[in-house]
Amino acid sequence: MKRINEDITAYLEKIVEEEREAHHDGTIDACMESTGYTDPDMFGLCAMSTRGDLKNAGHADEIFPLESVSKALTLVFALEDVGAEELFRYVGKEPTGDQYHSITPLEEGKKGFPSNPMVNPGAIVVTSKIRGRDGDERFARLLDFVRIIADNPRIDYNHKMYETGDSDLHRSLFYYMRSHGAVSGSEEDSLVPYLKQTCIEMSCCDLARIAAVLANKGRDPVSGNQLIRSENVRLSLILMLTTGMYDASGTFAVDVGLPSKSGISGAILSVVPGRMGIGTIGPAVDSSGNSIVGVRILQKLAARWRLGVFS
Amino acid sequence: MKRINEDITAYLEKIVEEEREAHHDGTIDACMESTGYTDPDMFGLCAMSTRGDLKNAGHADEIFPLESVSKALTLVFALEDVGAEELFRYVGKEPTGDQYHSITPLEEGKKGFPSNPMVNPGAIVVTSKIRGRDGDERFARLLDFVRIIADNPRIDYNHKMYETGDSDLHRSLFYYMRSHGAVSGSEEDSLVPYLKQTCIEMSCCDLARIAAVLANKGRDPVSGNQLIRSENVRLSLILMLTTGMYDASGTFAVDVGLPSKSGISGAILSVVPGRMGIGTIGPAVDSSGNSIVGVRILQKLAARWRLGVFS
Amino acid sequence: MKRINEDITAYLEKIVEEEREAHHDGTIDACMESTGYTDPDMFGLCAMSTRGDLKNAGHADEIFPLESVSKALTLVFALEDVGAEELFRYVGKEPTGDQYHSITPLEEGKKGFPSNPMVNPGAIVVTSKIRGRDGDERFARLLDFVRIIADNPRIDYNHKMYETGDSDLHRSLFYYMRSHGAVSGSEEDSLVPYLKQTCIEMSCCDLARIAAVLANKGRDPVSGNQLIRSENVRLSLILMLTTGMYDASGTFAVDVGLPSKSGISGAILSVVPGRMGIGTIGPAVDSSGNSIVGVRILQKLAARWRLGVFS
Amino acid sequence: MKRINEDITAYLEKIVEEEREAHHDGTIDACMESTGYTDPDMFGLCAMSTRGDLKNAGHADEIFPLESVSKALTLVFALEDVGAEELFRYVGKEPTGDQYHSITPLEEGKKGFPSNPMVNPGAIVVTSKIRGRDGDERFARLLDFVRIIADNPRIDYNHKMYETGDSDLHRSLFYYMRSHGAVSGSEEDSLVPYLKQTCIEMSCCDLARIAAVLANKGRDPVSGNQLIRSENVRLSLILMLTTGMYDASGTFAVDVGLPSKSGISGAILSVVPGRMGIGTIGPAVDSSGNSIVGVRILQKLAARWRLGVFS
Repeated sequence: MKRINEDITAYLEKIVEEEREAHHDGTIDACMESTGYTDPDMFGLCAMSTRGDLKNAGHADEIFPLESVSKALTLVFALEDVGAEELFRYVGKEPTGDQYHSITPLEEGKKGFPSNPMVNPGAIVVTSKIRGRDGDERFARLLDFVRIIADNPRIDYNHKMYETGDSDLHRSLFYYMRSHGAVSGSEEDSLVPYLKQTCIEMSCCDLARIAAVLANKGRDPVSGNQLIRSENVRLSLILMLTTGMYDASGTFAVDVGLPSKSGISGAILSVVPGRMGIGTIGPAVDSSGNSIVGVRILQKLAARWRLGVFS
Repeated sequence: MKRINEDITAYLEKIVEEEREAHHDGTIDACMESTGYTDPDMFGLCAMSTRGDLKNAGHADEIFPLESVSKALTLVFALEDVGAEELFRYVGKEPTGDQYHSITPLEEGKKGFPSNPMVNPGAIVVTSKIRGRDGDERFARLLDFVRIIADNPRIDYNHKMYETGDSDLHRSLFYYMRSHGAVSGSEEDSLVPYLKQTCIEMSCCDLARIAAVLANKGRDPVSGNQLIRSENVRLSLILMLTTGMYDASGTFAVDVGLPSKSGISGAILSVVPGRMGIGTIGPAVDSSGNSIVGVRILQKLAARWRLGVFS
Repeated sequence: MKRINEDITAYLEKIVEEEREAHHDGTIDACMESTGYTDPDMFGLCAMSTRGDLKNAGHADEIFPLESVSKALTLVFALEDVGAEELFRYVGKEPTGDQYHSITPLEEGKKGFPSNPMVNPGAIVVTSKIRGRDGDERFARLLDFVRIIADNPRIDYNHKMYETGDSDLHRSLFYYMRSHGAVSGSEEDSLVPYLKQTCIEMSCCDLARIAAVLANKGRDPVSGNQLIRSENVRLSLILMLTTGMYDASGTFAVDVGLPSKSGISGAILSVVPGRMGIGTIGPAVDSSGNSIVGVRILQKLAARWRLGVFS
Repeated sequence: MKRINEDITAYLEKIVEEEREAHHDGTIDACMESTGYTDPDMFGLCAMSTRGDLKNAGHADEIFPLESVSKALTLVFALEDVGAEELFRYVGKEPTGDQYHSITPLEEGKKGFPSNPMVNPGAIVVTSKIRGRDGDERFARLLDFVRIIADNPRIDYNHKMYETGDSDLHRSLFYYMRSHGAVSGSEEDSLVPYLKQTCIEMSCCDLARIAAVLANKGRDPVSGNQLIRSENVRLSLILMLTTGMYDASGTFAVDVGLPSKSGISGAILSVVPGRMGIGTIGPAVDSSGNSIVGVRILQKLAARWRLGVFS
């Protein structure tokens, strides 16, 4: 594979060096303990251009749990699997000023139906709509899709993390929505696949590869295969732009302008449409749940190279 | 048994006649369908004085499900069983401006801990604290207590209603609170006893007997036995006054002034401290969930005889 | 004047001594700075029985601003002046789980109409309904009434406090309600009287005298004159019980059970219906805004002598 | 001037014909009464390409009040006038799930500071930051700017509409924010300029001209003059995309994908970056406050010609 644009590459190395220390303002979420990634100094970045060029920095090959980043992948697959029309009967497209795990918004607006696919209740709904005889098949199909778009058959979920995780808050959201008809089926069939997909693990390079597919209108930059319908890529990118960075999504859209999805684990998947996909991991997160180092690097990168939307 | 004060008795008959038609502004909740009590014209009232005198009017002997009225009985028993100090570690004493089934207030204030024992999440907490090896024993002990204070061993819960009821919203509340430590244990052990107690059935005369015990500082008006500690009666009466009539509790306190607990089934248990207990059933309820006929009769009665608090 | 019941008198002295130090957990509100009462050790109490007996302790004769305590007096006067039916067209009778100065509740429920007369927007509405050609007459009539029920013609408001107070938050509430029709008229005519009444100053003994009138169904314990209609006393006492102690009203009702009204200045007016009125001042307040020493003394007093409602 | 792309032109005519009747689902806001534009059949559209080509349909030359559309113009000018860094000290960049006139969000998050420049409190803050000795100069400078970017010196505000408008709700927002330091100064100086800018009137062709300047990175398509700094255009377009269409902004971003700003008058200013600016008027609005015909035409246009972001 060829290297991406030399200038951007050199700049990437420069800002990774500059911003490494930024994590000191953040905290590491408890969910990372079972993974061993509790070193705030750890940082990894990988970028893949839409021509398939690759650039690494830091711990780009070590794996970590996706946490909320997986919501973006699950959305893409559900759009492919059941279609936008069916999916958006059960979940909205609106940003919410509230926190991602909040149950309060479910009592407002369209009662029991979540605002968008990037908040926890929204992602529960989205996962539950994936086709499958039961929860196992539902999750297996999603995992297969993730392996394909990352071109990495070894991707799996962290079993220990899944088994030890506290799921009561998710159960609460699930039953609240089931009582209003937004989800159906049992916990096993409809909630468990959601719980498992938050535990999917991969490296920054896997993230960058997936992001590059999205940057390339759904076509694999390396093989040239159309892996995702371009219309579903478009829908996903807009929702990532307006709702992908927790309750700092609007600020990130203005300050950076790249459709992205972050996880409490410190991972960020970021898309520069038509140009490249970026994956970063830096476990120290800010009060909104976004990786401090990740956000700063993406902001510098977007500003320097005018990568953001409408730039 | 002797008759209660002749004047009040005559007045009761008069206002029952006058207010029978008031139900036309109300609606009958879906929960009543499995019980057969869907006739808005149905009305029953029973009053028992603290000397044991009894007065009936209308359908006073037919049984109906208590719905939220049972929250008051469960509170009394939990206070007897575990004590106020222990109980109020997990549930507050504050009225809330929100609806009784709302989950939103759980995200405010003391997060995951309900405001008071008369909203659904509060009653779930209270029921779960009753002592017992499991849910069956927990509920059996509660039911025994209810039979004793009503002096009626035939009181039971409506099995069909329990089995057909939709419990997803309650599950949602349960798991939300469990994730914050306000409740513990399984659904079977800690939530099912709550679901069953809402299905307990009795007649207006059973309600009046229980209310008379409360009006008599916990002493049975007929046998003279002390069935409830007077301090626990006091606590329960105040909470009934401030929170017993759903989100119209404040208005009812001002307009009527009797510590009472209403149910969506149209039942009301009402206490005139030192004087009498009253039970009414009238299935047409207002927008807050209170029996229209019941509220009007209690208001007229309290105004005419200056029965309300501070009168 | 004769002394009130000797036993209670002795007990009062005892608990005032015991609880003096309790203030250390509290803070003194900024509003007290212009008054000079910023000494947390300052404490005063006065009790007057319904037979006119008087008992003092501590700084019972020094004057302090009433702050929210005045809401109770303004409510009583507005009820006398325009009647309950007219008044409750514009303000509700329901407790609210929110803070007393919150504007959020005005967007819920009956939009633009406040929940009850004891929250700031409610008291603004109540004050604005007092009859008068303009704001000056409106406030003058209220002040006259307060002087009469306290039997103290020297009572006035603190001009400096009124002039230096920040009123923007109240202006915001005022215009919000005016846009929905709950209040009318200009700031001068309808808001200024509210702002002035919060600055009314008096001593604990003035408070005790007023409270004793309320405890005596509106009849002056000393002169025997009926100063307030008994029905308006009843309405006011219930609203004090359910909403008088900020967002700790429900807890105070359960733990103490005396209809009371507190102010951020550390003042509390407390009524023992049929027995006595109590005024306390202790400027260190808890997180709800209630005087720490005041609440503890009232709780001990009520528990020891079974003074609370339904005791 | 030359005509814009012939194909789009023909398509515009076609969909304007097709969608004319769509207004039947909407209502006309009371604010339009004083303007005479209460005919739901009225519809106007104008598009200007970034090369200066112009296309009209319907009532494209009649003037109407901008209402909230002006928020976008005021934001652009304030960014030019005081800079982004200064401005965003007082107003956020986050979408809110709440209605545009709501005061509730001001009690959450950064207390007293509005979420974004497109909700009413946010626009009040933005207008108040425009430089000027007083409110008159502040508004005069804004109006001058609007005339310049529309290349139309006859643009003015509707004096009658300004004088008869009910401003109490805005006063409430203003004083709430002033009490928290988000705005300062008097009503005359800081609120009146906001009230006047909502009354600015122009035609669809004026709107299209302004939108074309924004589509052209701030450069006038006709004269070639740089009227707005490109960075401020970028900031404004992103905020229009995430917050410009009231509480349907997220849905419009997904379904249409054009940075736009709507007004309750039925006006919409819409930008196709790099290609064209569009102005529409159709007074029947949906429950969110957006012109029904306008939204449908923009959606069809964006879908047919892949004009939306990330298409």
